[in-house]
Amino acid sequence: MRALLLDQELKLVEDYPTPELPPGEALVRVSLAGICNTDLELVKGYQQFRGVPGHEFVGVVERAPGAEEADRKHPLEGRRVVGEINAACGACSTCRAGRPTHCPHRTTLGISGRDGAFAEYLTLPVRNLHPVPDSLPDEVAVFTEPLAAACEILEQVHVRPTDRVVVLGDGKLGLLCAQVVALTGCDLVAVGHHREKLDILARQGISTALEDTAVEEGADLVVETTGYPGGYAAARRLVRPRGRIVLKSTYHGAFDADLTMVAVDEVTLVGSRCGPFGPALRLLERGLVEVTTMIQARYPLSQAVTAFEHAARPGTLKVLVDVGWAC
Amino acid sequence: MRALLLDQELKLVEDYPTPELPPGEALVRVSLAGICNTDLELVKGYQQFRGVPGHEFVGVVERAPGAEEADRKHPLEGRRVVGEINAACGACSTCRAGRPTHCPHRTTLGISGRDGAFAEYLTLPVRNLHPVPDSLPDEVAVFTEPLAAACEILEQVHVRPTDRVVVLGDGKLGLLCAQVVALTGCDLVAVGHHREKLDILARQGISTALEDTAVEEGADLVVETTGYPGGYAAARRLVRPRGRIVLKSTYHGAFDADLTMVAVDEVTLVGSRCGPFGPALRLLERGLVEVTTMIQARYPLSQAVTAFEHAARPGTLKVLVDVGWAC
Repeated sequence: MRALLLDQELKLVEDYPTPELPPGEALVRVSLAGICNTDLELVKGYQQFRGVPGHEFVGVVERAPGAEEADRKHPLEGRRVVGEINAACGACSTCRAGRPTHCPHRTTLGISGRDGAFAEYLTLPVRNLHPVPDSLPDEVAVFTEPLAAACEILEQVHVRPTDRVVVLGDGKLGLLCAQVVALTGCDLVAVGHHREKLDILARQGISTALEDTAVEEGADLVVETTGYPGGYAAARRLVRPRGRIVLKSTYHGAFDADLTMVAVDEVTLVGSRCGPFGPALRLLERGLVEVTTMIQARYPLSQAVTAFEHAARPGTLKVLVDVGWAC
Repeated sequence: MRALLLDQELKLVEDYPTPELPPGEALVRVSLAGICNTDLELVKGYQQFRGVPGHEFVGVVERAPGAEEADRKHPLEGRRVVGEINAACGACSTCRAGRPTHCPHRTTLGISGRDGAFAEYLTLPVRNLHPVPDSLPDEVAVFTEPLAAACEILEQVHVRPTDRVVVLGDGKLGLLCAQVVALTGCDLVAVGHHREKLDILARQGISTALEDTAVEEGADLVVETTGYPGGYAAARRLVRPRGRIVLKSTYHGAFDADLTMVAVDEVTLVGSRCGPFGPALRLLERGLVEVTTMIQARYPLSQAVTAFEHAARPGTLKVLVDVGWAC
């Protein structure tokens, strides 16, 4: 099959082997995949990943277990799906404790130990797949994975409607986090450096600011999505004593974080990563989160390397790779 | 009055002015005061504090507001008391939100903007004072303030009886934290580097270990009290994904804390400082926390400089300054 391979550098391969189907997994024909900042980090060497990147996708189930033995078709066969990216062992104590996304034996689609979505086919455990409602076009459903990561904030911390909240960062994840948090009715300001990106929020009536210094200090909750140590410093400055900082950022290595003042001000830092797909699909289906205005380009798989170059340009929002686009 | 003054260095002063009584405050004759690690940090320059240090004390109320105007004595006059160390304004939005210990206008006894307990007299707002039950000797009651800081852990995080918990550090605060957390019935291991200190816990049936590497990873909760960046590193290694780290340590400046892995593992860091006095007094009164075995020396105020030198020796637990001891 055709696949985008990361092996020191990115290259399109025409004869990459179509994946074998392990027990309990389904074969998915990829329709559309999104380029995430994590993908750009993988290209720079993050996780020393070698294989097919890509973890935001929509596809159609081509084959699912049980279909061959029995006469009947697996109910997911032929269905359009999105998929949770962590494939857990299901047997270890972490899995049994109900935290499969933290399974130490997990593989992660297109990130760690498992080929991903910038290819004609991928496999994932059947239990990872979620059917996409018919009303959602592919270019909306492809945002399910990052939107789930935004929903994880509400899964982890109680955002009260009376809370004063700041979301730092107007990248792809920041815009999704701001929209999800704003649904609680809280008093939210989203801070970024790009007027045109913040306007995606402003058009929905969400308050925005171009400088974190313009935001009143003493926030009950700050969601930090910038990925820069300066974002963490701003979060510490803006949060009130006993307030909470949700860390959505994965920073490039360690940096000087003043944990003494975290103790003195009794601030709570909550690390946050992947989230639940069900709520994300519900929000998309109800049209409560605006995603299509974040799409800036769409390339066929044959031009996936160019798509990555585009996505890596500073200030770029979502770039999609249209795997189903014959070209 | 006689007082221990910190002004670049520590010196005993015979004619320090007895404090004036501001409105709403009580004059307390100090009986006994404890040397805390924060005091040792102040001597090294922390907070640029100039004045009388000392914030762990027991004393007797000499004068309280209202006593002069009316004929009747204020109910606290003549009472033995301990005192909460943060004197808040009571009027700002932080105070009105119920977080007076974080009042931005606060002074803190013997730490910031207010003379402390290594002197014959101190003043504190009447509302900060708690009568000491008669059954508690001074050398027990003087532990109320640090024990309250240990109780703050249970105020901030829900420790379940089924949780696996690690307390890092066998200093004064670590020993108190371990004892408080153990009262929940949780599966606790206290880690330190001094067998004789850990024995204070071991004699009570609390599990201990001399090396954090000997402790099983995957703890639900780690309480970090060491004050060293290595303690934070050990906490990160020992805590499970989605687990919690309570930061009791105030570190010397910033250090490289890998917040990326906090996000990836969805760990929650909870900064923790001063705590509630009521529960601490109740635990002491019921004899549920062992404190007197932590006392290693007791000096009269006239030898307070020597007391500080003793307290600063590595591995020393509690050194008390007996202010009421005529000498």
